[in-house]
Amino acid sequence: MKAFAMLEVGKVGWIEKDSPKAGPLDAIVRPIAIAPCTSDVHTVWAGAIGDRKNMILGHEAVGEVVEVGKLVKDFKPGDKVIVPAITPDWGSLESQAGFPQHSTGMLAGWKFSNFKDGVFAEYFHVNEADANLAHLPEGVNPADAVMLTDMVTTGFHGAELAGVTLGDSVVVVGIGPVGLMSVAGANLMGASHLYAVGTRPKCVEAAKFYGATDIINYKDGDIADQILEKTHGKGVDKVIIAGGNVDTFAQAVKMLKPGGAIGSVNYLGEGDYIKIPRVEWGVGMGHKRINAGLTPGGRLRMEKLVSLVETKKLDVSKLITHKFTGFKEVEPALMLMKDKPADLIKPVVVIE
Amino acid sequence: MKAFAMLEVGKVGWIEKDSPKAGPLDAIVRPIAIAPCTSDVHTVWAGAIGDRKNMILGHEAVGEVVEVGKLVKDFKPGDKVIVPAITPDWGSLESQAGFPQHSTGMLAGWKFSNFKDGVFAEYFHVNEADANLAHLPEGVNPADAVMLTDMVTTGFHGAELAGVTLGDSVVVVGIGPVGLMSVAGANLMGASHLYAVGTRPKCVEAAKFYGATDIINYKDGDIADQILEKTHGKGVDKVIIAGGNVDTFAQAVKMLKPGGAIGSVNYLGEGDYIKIPRVEWGVGMGHKRINAGLTPGGRLRMEKLVSLVETKKLDVSKLITHKFTGFKEVEPALMLMKDKPADLIKPVVVIE
Amino acid sequence: MKAFAMLEVGKVGWIEKDSPKAGPLDAIVRPIAIAPCTSDVHTVWAGAIGDRKNMILGHEAVGEVVEVGKLVKDFKPGDKVIVPAITPDWGSLESQAGFPQHSTGMLAGWKFSNFKDGVFAEYFHVNEADANLAHLPEGVNPADAVMLTDMVTTGFHGAELAGVTLGDSVVVVGIGPVGLMSVAGANLMGASHLYAVGTRPKCVEAAKFYGATDIINYKDGDIADQILEKTHGKGVDKVIIAGGNVDTFAQAVKMLKPGGAIGSVNYLGEGDYIKIPRVEWGVGMGHKRINAGLTPGGRLRMEKLVSLVETKKLDVSKLITHKFTGFKEVEPALMLMKDKPADLIKPVVVIE
Amino acid sequence: MKAFAMLEVGKVGWIEKDSPKAGPLDAIVRPIAIAPCTSDVHTVWAGAIGDRKNMILGHEAVGEVVEVGKLVKDFKPGDKVIVPAITPDWGSLESQAGFPQHSTGMLAGWKFSNFKDGVFAEYFHVNEADANLAHLPEGVNPADAVMLTDMVTTGFHGAELAGVTLGDSVVVVGIGPVGLMSVAGANLMGASHLYAVGTRPKCVEAAKFYGATDIINYKDGDIADQILEKTHGKGVDKVIIAGGNVDTFAQAVKMLKPGGAIGSVNYLGEGDYIKIPRVEWGVGMGHKRINAGLTPGGRLRMEKLVSLVETKKLDVSKLITHKFTGFKEVEPALMLMKDKPADLIKPVVVIE
Repeated sequence: MKAFAMLEVGKVGWIEKDSPKAGPLDAIVRPIAIAPCTSDVHTVWAGAIGDRKNMILGHEAVGEVVEVGKLVKDFKPGDKVIVPAITPDWGSLESQAGFPQHSTGMLAGWKFSNFKDGVFAEYFHVNEADANLAHLPEGVNPADAVMLTDMVTTGFHGAELAGVTLGDSVVVVGIGPVGLMSVAGANLMGASHLYAVGTRPKCVEAAKFYGATDIINYKDGDIADQILEKTHGKGVDKVIIAGGNVDTFAQAVKMLKPGGAIGSVNYLGEGDYIKIPRVEWGVGMGHKRINAGLTPGGRLRMEKLVSLVETKKLDVSKLITHKFTGFKEVEPALMLMKDKPADLIKPVVVIE
Repeated sequence: MKAFAMLEVGKVGWIEKDSPKAGPLDAIVRPIAIAPCTSDVHTVWAGAIGDRKNMILGHEAVGEVVEVGKLVKDFKPGDKVIVPAITPDWGSLESQAGFPQHSTGMLAGWKFSNFKDGVFAEYFHVNEADANLAHLPEGVNPADAVMLTDMVTTGFHGAELAGVTLGDSVVVVGIGPVGLMSVAGANLMGASHLYAVGTRPKCVEAAKFYGATDIINYKDGDIADQILEKTHGKGVDKVIIAGGNVDTFAQAVKMLKPGGAIGSVNYLGEGDYIKIPRVEWGVGMGHKRINAGLTPGGRLRMEKLVSLVETKKLDVSKLITHKFTGFKEVEPALMLMKDKPADLIKPVVVIE
Repeated sequence: MKAFAMLEVGKVGWIEKDSPKAGPLDAIVRPIAIAPCTSDVHTVWAGAIGDRKNMILGHEAVGEVVEVGKLVKDFKPGDKVIVPAITPDWGSLESQAGFPQHSTGMLAGWKFSNFKDGVFAEYFHVNEADANLAHLPEGVNPADAVMLTDMVTTGFHGAELAGVTLGDSVVVVGIGPVGLMSVAGANLMGASHLYAVGTRPKCVEAAKFYGATDIINYKDGDIADQILEKTHGKGVDKVIIAGGNVDTFAQAVKMLKPGGAIGSVNYLGEGDYIKIPRVEWGVGMGHKRINAGLTPGGRLRMEKLVSLVETKKLDVSKLITHKFTGFKEVEPALMLMKDKPADLIKPVVVIE
Repeated sequence: MKAFAMLEVGKVGWIEKDSPKAGPLDAIVRPIAIAPCTSDVHTVWAGAIGDRKNMILGHEAVGEVVEVGKLVKDFKPGDKVIVPAITPDWGSLESQAGFPQHSTGMLAGWKFSNFKDGVFAEYFHVNEADANLAHLPEGVNPADAVMLTDMVTTGFHGAELAGVTLGDSVVVVGIGPVGLMSVAGANLMGASHLYAVGTRPKCVEAAKFYGATDIINYKDGDIADQILEKTHGKGVDKVIIAGGNVDTFAQAVKMLKPGGAIGSVNYLGEGDYIKIPRVEWGVGMGHKRINAGLTPGGRLRMEKLVSLVETKKLDVSKLITHKFTGFKEVEPALMLMKDKPADLIKPVVVIE
């Protein structure tokens, strides 16, 4: 089969590979809508997960089941399915402990284009199909549903890690597609004052659509100072980190109330340490909690998220700024993610 | 001063009483907007809290501070304030344990028109003013803010007790003003499918406005059966009880998934027992959790809720179907609550 | 193979059956220590789960693996293993929601001697072996480890459902083997005053060993009244129900503080309703939380529990009052459970 | 009155001051047992909280009430009381949010020898007496009870912040008096394998008494490496930090499982930043939660803790290695804390 792959660090291209085979619990899926992710860019051009040879890229897909293993009960060829980026081993000790995203090892619930081939192929393999696929409901279009597989679930997890409750004041740092979904997630969980940190007009417009009440521009000064000024020196209840780098945490700690919490879903690609400022952290006694983690995945998560789309509680269409048609378009779509033009939030490639 | 009171069980009227005095931590407040509550009706005509002689009624008010005790720091005469229905003793052991609404005894955080005179008077007394009053923000009108003191906080608490999370399917039983705020609360906390049980057209319209996706009419058959049919026999994740009676819990248990939760904020005025059906409750092993409690009150709660109004995340205006002007109108407003015409959700009396 | 079975309601006996076969994820295990459970008695003589023909009894076992499916990675023939009474389908939606004991349906994580043959056989089948078996550590004897499979995990779950925290006052109703483990669990979670309700001298002695500070005898008067007297009318923080019947909940509600919680792990075999007393439950607003559920099972749970035995934080030996040797002794052991002599806590049958 | 004070940074001595006066909610207490704390040493000799002139030292005391304000209900002169180191303003917004230790500002629940005079005086002042004092139960001796005011509550809070659950493997870094109480707290909350990091023989002996199963000596190599070796590379479920410095967190992160949690109660006196190692923290996605905070205080906390002493679930006597008699002995007792001889855990001064 044909597939679009990372050939080595810094290099992508089309390759031929054997089609994957399904074990007793697995499914083989043909993509019908896919999207490239900033992680693909990090993987290829920053070597984020180390070297990989001819590894098929991509972990965001909606598809059609073409084959299932003999123990699979709830899916059959022809079914349209949402495929989460994170597909845990549900029986692992980590899953039993409530952390399926770390099943069999830290971050190891993330398999596509990491430990195995990704979804930018004519066919791809899904482990534990009954537990990791979700039926695509009628009336939800595949391009929208692709947003759930990573952008929505990751963004929402930021709001969950921060523990947003009714009436909380919340800062979201970063308003790329994940940050926008952190805005939407915080809003859906009941945030009142919702400060979104970002500058690109397209993203600012989307942030407001998703519930941001204030836009903070880092060009106007230190963002922690701006938040403290707006909150009369009190700080906010929660901070969600969906952008920035290892230094962003120091600002987050500064703008947070004692007893507040940081939820971070940002991939930290560089730097030896995340630095927590001692004094603003209450000399270690300020109860400014720090929670950072990979999104959950799996079937139930996808079902819950798509139910929000079905009931029109969540409109993901504002994320999709560029739509391509045809499998071969995955290449320009990925290059677009790499080049990040100002008007880009997220591209989607619709195959069928 | 002049006040509107319960003279005895079954009888209301206007009385003269001495104005209240402020202890060192207290405030005296003049009401500028008040609302009668179904509880006032229960108190007078059902004798819900036992006999009371010449007790001033009312526990929903926004007002103006006229006097403060010498230890009060954050409020001064002239300040416009939101007064929660529940005004805890914040130093009590129960408050320290996280249950201020039960400070010094079960339900004893509820003081107005229960253990002391209520707010339907020229002046009323507020204990621990710094901890129990909230400043009325500019731009929020007093009539709207009155809704926060009981209807919003109680309705939202139903959603909190049920523990609504992103993408949950939720049933709200009862769509009077509290139930409508349970709908709004569940929606603000991320419910997807939101089934509201009720029939009155005015309330149905408001329920849809507040996020209900389906309306369940008990005239169309057993509500548990209707929910089970709509959910293909699976049941829902959460049930909020904001209406009905002691028998409602049996239906709630039936329509709930194992692992689900009931949040109830309904006052249960009659019946010896709430009956939990043994088999549907998993012979005592189904993890269908039952949480029922009085709303929290106090300053922080009011500040959080009013921040939702300020940021336009919550529009309470749909609750107010009848608006009166002038203190003396509290009498017809209360009678309206008693008579419950079909088009009533909630009346408000604006005094100034 | 030979097995001890329920022939029909009210009748047990020895039968011959084909040995079970392992699917790709499964294991076949030969028991080396087993114990009968009150549930077996209910199943046979009360028809608790309906009629069953020639169903092999038993769900408490430690054994030796004799065969594994080809996808099993962590176990091999010859391994000594602890087999939890509850063996969930870990990929199910219920497991993903945090309730593996209800995987694929309420209580359906309980499979042995319920939906499939039990462990009183020469060989028995374990689904999802990697996720449901735990290695028996060296130095832990099989008879002790059998206690973990149901008695310990169920008893501890009562303490977990009640949410015992440091310094809590706790009542445990019932001090059979499960109740004793609720006493031990509450003690391990930090209870201070720990009131155990029971009368049999053997159990009373064990309750004290496991951390009970006071013994309440129902023959000395209503147990709720006794608790209220001992707590100066205040009640306790938590109540664990591990005995009694549907009426026990009314007493539990009465002896509980507002804001307290009930954790119940008692199987309720009879009665249409559990009755919650309206007034003592705060007319539906007292925050007396009611949590009742089947124990968790699975590998991680067993590993956690056996680690307490290994480190001598838990000594289960006080539970075992009667020890039999040889497979055929399972019959008298079960009859002992049925007859419940005064000096019985729990029998064990050691096979090898 | 006579008092022992910090005269300026680096200097202590005896001073004369006016006796404190009680406001309407307050109490004046005469100490009957007191203890110096490492914080006193930091305050004086490291200038940890900045310069202070003639500030009376000390925040650990048991005493006798000599005067109460007119609004105080539950205490009267002559009552023996436990006085927590942390005495919150219970009506503050932070207390209402569940963080009384930060009432009115980060760490501001800590008042003694910080914002106001401490307890090393003939008389000292307690704010909100009903909410911040606890009766000393008969049978609990004052010297033991002094341990509860800071050492026990702080140590236990480490275990609470880490969220220890039944069967968890736990590391406690530091086995001074606070660390020992973290060991005891983790043990009381159900830890199985409990690794205590320390070297002094007296402390090691006490750690074993309080439930440590393994002692880790940093002289034998990197402590994270030692823990990883003992856990076969898996790491532990929880880490409690009760010693070390800003660099200790990096080790804690390394020895923790994904999904694990750090609870820190260590005062961090130096260094600009706490450094979290990026890779071991899962590039920001490992769900290794970091919780660090000041102990709770107040009456309920003291009542809960003393109930553990009353019921013999906690024996604090192993903490007290040096006992002095007479108020004037507070000076050598403090110098002992400063000099930290090898056989010191904690000194107490009994006054009466």
